[in-house]
Amino acid sequence: MTSFLNRLQFSIEWGQCDPAGIVFNSRFFEFFDRGTWMLFQAALGAKPHELGPVYGIMGIPLVDAGARFLKPARFGDEVELTSRVSEFRRSSFDVAHQLFVDGVLAVDGKETRVWAMRDPADPSKIKSQPIPPDVLARFQV
Amino acid sequence: MTSFLNRLQFSIEWGQCDPAGIVFNSRFFEFFDRGTWMLFQAALGAKPHELGPVYGIMGIPLVDAGARFLKPARFGDEVELTSRVSEFRRSSFDVAHQLFVDGVLAVDGKETRVWAMRDPADPSKIKSQPIPPDVLARFQV
Amino acid sequence: MTSFLNRLQFSIEWGQCDPAGIVFNSRFFEFFDRGTWMLFQAALGAKPHELGPVYGIMGIPLVDAGARFLKPARFGDEVELTSRVSEFRRSSFDVAHQLFVDGVLAVDGKETRVWAMRDPADPSKIKSQPIPPDVLARFQV
Amino acid sequence: MTSFLNRLQFSIEWGQCDPAGIVFNSRFFEFFDRGTWMLFQAALGAKPHELGPVYGIMGIPLVDAGARFLKPARFGDEVELTSRVSEFRRSSFDVAHQLFVDGVLAVDGKETRVWAMRDPADPSKIKSQPIPPDVLARFQV
Repeated sequence: MTSFLNRLQFSIEWGQCDPAGIVFNSRFFEFFDRGTWMLFQAALGAKPHELGPVYGIMGIPLVDAGARFLKPARFGDEVELTSRVSEFRRSSFDVAHQLFVDGVLAVDGKETRVWAMRDPADPSKIKSQPIPPDVLARFQV
Repeated sequence: MTSFLNRLQFSIEWGQCDPAGIVFNSRFFEFFDRGTWMLFQAALGAKPHELGPVYGIMGIPLVDAGARFLKPARFGDEVELTSRVSEFRRSSFDVAHQLFVDGVLAVDGKETRVWAMRDPADPSKIKSQPIPPDVLARFQV
Repeated sequence: MTSFLNRLQFSIEWGQCDPAGIVFNSRFFEFFDRGTWMLFQAALGAKPHELGPVYGIMGIPLVDAGARFLKPARFGDEVELTSRVSEFRRSSFDVAHQLFVDGVLAVDGKETRVWAMRDPADPSKIKSQPIPPDVLARFQV
Repeated sequence: MTSFLNRLQFSIEWGQCDPAGIVFNSRFFEFFDRGTWMLFQAALGAKPHELGPVYGIMGIPLVDAGARFLKPARFGDEVELTSRVSEFRRSSFDVAHQLFVDGVLAVDGKETRVWAMRDPADPSKIKSQPIPPDVLARFQV
């Protein structure tokens, strides 16, 4: 609830829209992915490609994603995407994404991601890791 | 449960994979969209772009989508996507999508769509319509 | 040469990169498309989706596109895309796009587009139109 | 001219089309990329992800791509993509891609790619390699 929130403003591109003239659904999941990286950059001060090296992880892989499409977004629309961690668990977390068109909620999305490293015993596998306290602290506001 | 099921086989492309070497999440939602169109083509005998004209609708817009990512799919993987309507309601329905890699469930997805026409009173709006009985009948197997 | 030039700055996203860790080629053509719309917005003062209504055209369809890939762009790279009309002809024009990573030219692209309206005699067809003098004037700097 | 030619048949998807109802240009470059991988699979008998390991290369990176868009391809269109190497040079080659809608050429594309390995002296760099004679032989028909 009191978690750090990041805002992105951008305009909808022609190539992101389908023959109905509205954003094709898969594009919103691209937006969410970018929203999460930018949220972590804003909260942690580490650029997306530095997140792995800085924290000794292989990344924050996605294990669940979903969205409700309430209103369409169209070519040329100026939109705002807000992203924040809605819940931290021991080694996973949820990110809530909300996309607004003219201040009205258009898409309500959620991602679940894991704080993960490569398994030292088998680098082809990944295993979840406890999220470090200093990472958690950075998201408190 | 006894609803018509459609299967698509395809291989994962280079351009669908991310720097982790696995399919980027938004691509699965492209797969689901194609899965639904192909399911309707198989069940109704109407090609995707004919669905609107044949049934007097503007389309089957998506109102909800979600996926759990259980195992990664990689470049070159031969995958199978199964799609079936898991529930029909009066004017909306759910489509269950399951993507298998080597016979193992890798992604478990769901879409909710609406049987919709343009509002005669205001063509800029759409309104849901009862799904015709003959459409329902085609999905019984 | 003295044509209006537009600059876009953005960072490379995870989902735009392939398993080699670099931007997948088709994404650059998305960048170019956005570059052209933003160039016209900057030069004409009309937002992309207003271009058709304001000028009585159906759009500026692409008839040719190409790119040389000189250096890779990677996840997290801050890039600059410059776009300008390199040549106006009677009813078509070329747009030169250059993408820079750390100030070094990474991708050198070109689009050829047509100033087009629907054929009044057959709205399913499009025909090229002379580019209006006031449009040409706006690109002179 | 007498080079091995590969054919792919597929139908145009909703999510590949833009608000004009036609395939968005960047998608054709995705098609070309797939066309090249499938061409090499057909000619060499190695699956795309095996190409590197089998031939000791890091891949066949793209250095140039271009297309002329002659006719639109629309949602639901059944298309055929033909791909063949139009010229082999010492360590690079051109792939000609032609996309047909109803037997009529709609998009005429070309890629230039390099037969490349990682530089042993600096693995962060790649260097071109002579294309092996047995690879060349496989493309003669």
